[in-house]
Amino acid sequence: MKIGIIGSGVVAQTLGTKLVELGHDVVLGTRDPKKLDEKKNMAGSLNEWLASVNPSTGSGRGQAKVASFKEAAIHGEILINATHGQAAVEALHLAGAGEAGSKVLIDTSNELDFGKGFPMALASEGRSVAGNIQAAFPKLKVVKCFNTLAAPLMVNPKMLHGGDHTIFLSGNDAAAKAQVTELLKSFGWTDILDLGDISAARGQEMYMGMWVRLYGSLKNGMINIKVQR
Amino acid sequence: MKIGIIGSGVVAQTLGTKLVELGHDVVLGTRDPKKLDEKKNMAGSLNEWLASVNPSTGSGRGQAKVASFKEAAIHGEILINATHGQAAVEALHLAGAGEAGSKVLIDTSNELDFGKGFPMALASEGRSVAGNIQAAFPKLKVVKCFNTLAAPLMVNPKMLHGGDHTIFLSGNDAAAKAQVTELLKSFGWTDILDLGDISAARGQEMYMGMWVRLYGSLKNGMINIKVQR
Repeated sequence: MKIGIIGSGVVAQTLGTKLVELGHDVVLGTRDPKKLDEKKNMAGSLNEWLASVNPSTGSGRGQAKVASFKEAAIHGEILINATHGQAAVEALHLAGAGEAGSKVLIDTSNELDFGKGFPMALASEGRSVAGNIQAAFPKLKVVKCFNTLAAPLMVNPKMLHGGDHTIFLSGNDAAAKAQVTELLKSFGWTDILDLGDISAARGQEMYMGMWVRLYGSLKNGMINIKVQR
Repeated sequence: MKIGIIGSGVVAQTLGTKLVELGHDVVLGTRDPKKLDEKKNMAGSLNEWLASVNPSTGSGRGQAKVASFKEAAIHGEILINATHGQAAVEALHLAGAGEAGSKVLIDTSNELDFGKGFPMALASEGRSVAGNIQAAFPKLKVVKCFNTLAAPLMVNPKMLHGGDHTIFLSGNDAAAKAQVTELLKSFGWTDILDLGDISAARGQEMYMGMWVRLYGSLKNGMINIKVQR
């Protein structure tokens, strides 16, 4: 299949390599196709990528080419957006996506803001209920917990998949988290994951954006996630 | 242990019941302790809750009482916030949490907006990169996928836990999603979860708020979640 990838970073390169291995004909579109020796964020240069992909052309493998956003968009029967979330609409305008007809576009992007270091914020990130509470009541030892699943599961994890799933906590005080951990164990939890200080509560809260969609799709609220690591 | 629960809905009642079963002494604090017969959202009235909990006092079980926010906060050696995220800081002010000293407060809340029906929005929810792209290019068949994990895993799920973890997709066009599903299978994915139309992309994108915290805590980006259901 002919696949056009908009973007040239680690996601674009990784997907591109695998697609070529599987026999697809890939054009990877980049903003400036003359800059093939420029090192990419979290990935090698596009010349390095081409060298790693193209020697293997032949034995049932596909082809790889680097071109402009627009050429990639024209080439692909399927398009993949592998740009940053903040840049995605502009990059797709540059690619002429408005004239691409009704092609499939796989959007892999996140609106992660790498400009302020770790933890990368979403553009919409910034605050959490738990963080607000901790700020309003500085003496309290706030521990975020229990917000990621339905109430019956909070206290009876064994009712789902033998209890093989994960509960999260975060907070600034280690002793407070140890106390909550003991409480969780007394409820039957075995996979208890400490996410860090109270700022991590934003992650737990944002997860709910996913949870409500899982609930909607599965028509079942007695679900949870197991973090495989 | 003496536990004070701020809030009286399904989370408060469920945690309260389990804590009493485990021998703890629970005061459940409600905004108006005179309204014991009022049916709670997604739960029974507080009189029903008391009736279900108290008859069993004796045999190694704890005690249960319903009182004001303030009395619950005074009672508890550990406090649990089980109010809605939007109301949490105000409820805790009513509870006198500022004078509660350095007690542990477990915050279970989410800022879910139930006012607009399903899917419940987070207060900060409203838009997604994928939705913006779909709106800007109405002819394209946008499928959100791949944004929830590190690039090497996208194409090689078997490298983690034998491939026993979940990848998500969403989009408005069933045929486009079927095509992406075939692509995912060719990469080795076996647990492919369709979250619905493109509005569900917001869930996939918000999950990244969790992912960056998992990455920070585990110091390992080669992780993913398995949805147990």
